[in-house]
Amino acid sequence: MPDLSSIRALTFDVFGTVVDWRGTIIEEGKTWEIDLDWAALADGWRAGYQPAMQRVRSGELGWTRLDDLHRMILDGLLPAFGLNGLSEERLDHLNRVWHRLRPWPDALEGLTRLKQKYIIAPLSNGNLSLLTNMAKHAGLSWDCILSAELARHYKPDPEAYLTACRLLDLPPEQVLMVAAHEGDLRAAASVGMRTAYVHRPLEYGPEHPKPWPAETFDLMAQDFVHLAALSEET
Amino acid sequence: MPDLSSIRALTFDVFGTVVDWRGTIIEEGKTWEIDLDWAALADGWRAGYQPAMQRVRSGELGWTRLDDLHRMILDGLLPAFGLNGLSEERLDHLNRVWHRLRPWPDALEGLTRLKQKYIIAPLSNGNLSLLTNMAKHAGLSWDCILSAELARHYKPDPEAYLTACRLLDLPPEQVLMVAAHEGDLRAAASVGMRTAYVHRPLEYGPEHPKPWPAETFDLMAQDFVHLAALSEET
Repeated sequence: MPDLSSIRALTFDVFGTVVDWRGTIIEEGKTWEIDLDWAALADGWRAGYQPAMQRVRSGELGWTRLDDLHRMILDGLLPAFGLNGLSEERLDHLNRVWHRLRPWPDALEGLTRLKQKYIIAPLSNGNLSLLTNMAKHAGLSWDCILSAELARHYKPDPEAYLTACRLLDLPPEQVLMVAAHEGDLRAAASVGMRTAYVHRPLEYGPEHPKPWPAETFDLMAQDFVHLAALSEET
Repeated sequence: MPDLSSIRALTFDVFGTVVDWRGTIIEEGKTWEIDLDWAALADGWRAGYQPAMQRVRSGELGWTRLDDLHRMILDGLLPAFGLNGLSEERLDHLNRVWHRLRPWPDALEGLTRLKQKYIIAPLSNGNLSLLTNMAKHAGLSWDCILSAELARHYKPDPEAYLTACRLLDLPPEQVLMVAAHEGDLRAAASVGMRTAYVHRPLEYGPEHPKPWPAETFDLMAQDFVHLAALSEET
């Protein structure tokens, strides 16, 4: 195992890594008592995520926080899902389901253990208020909230990672990026951060399990409790 | 009492309001076993605070985080206090005493109660890493860390307050600024925030007790436990 004794802070991808966005949207959908394929809505919503951020990266859109991108994507999905009749109040509530996402079962225990030894912070494309509300709702006790919003650059742009390290006042090699997504980790490594992969095979649902990746990172963990155990060995 | 039912978040001044900077520096000084007037050092250090920020506001200095301003001020004080011989390591440790400040005795209980009902965050001239380290050291469980650093404008510049409200995604009238300093509250009110004064008569030491102010703000509290009680009435 690589020497990670100089690590001072852990930054976490959130959607898919800390919280189960797809499962939560489906679960919350059941309480709406609307005849709707909530899994398809969740998948359609998330499918619009990368293209929407790309419009910001390309300059077609000025800086736009994720809440507003989520709403633009949702608005585009309404006709296909027969949701045109929803009131503005209900649409706004639905759009904020991303503030109410449920952590994976191992996340709270793992984070509690990791917090004993390290500064822990999200480093997500979610805006600061989204991440703050989510933490309060889910009981995630971050040491601080870091977000692409603070750099006005979405991950995997290098500015998102470098701004986080600068705000932590740590050189990138003392910060460990934790994510279930290889691209996020590759981008973090390219600015000098250390990397931990956490496997979330069910992020896209039980019908589309994700295989263990071929690529390796500094740490390879089955979940957050395993990550805590690995970090306690270093 | 004014109607504060629309308040969603509380932002806190930190130095003097949440933590006792002067008392902590004197206390920590005792452990140094150096014959030194630590109260005078604390007072001299703090006396350099406003002028240093003014150099940033005026443009004489580019954006400079508070850790670095603290160090510049400290370096200027070394000869008068006979501290020129300190190693760089000890100087850096001394400079970070601002990361280790002790909360006033009522602060943790008050914040715990306020957190039940509101988003709570520091809004300090301290940089984000200083505030994050302080929170971890003192057990302050903020929902997120807000700082003048995120606006690159020191309070009382309006940008510092407006950036905090924008990041919280709240209109200023839904955010209550809490401080022991009238100027901070006046500046917050001028951008539309609500204001709570908390009395810290001993901030400048027992020889210089601060009288209760003539000016009034939306809430006037004896300490954080009193502030929590007032907020529970609204």
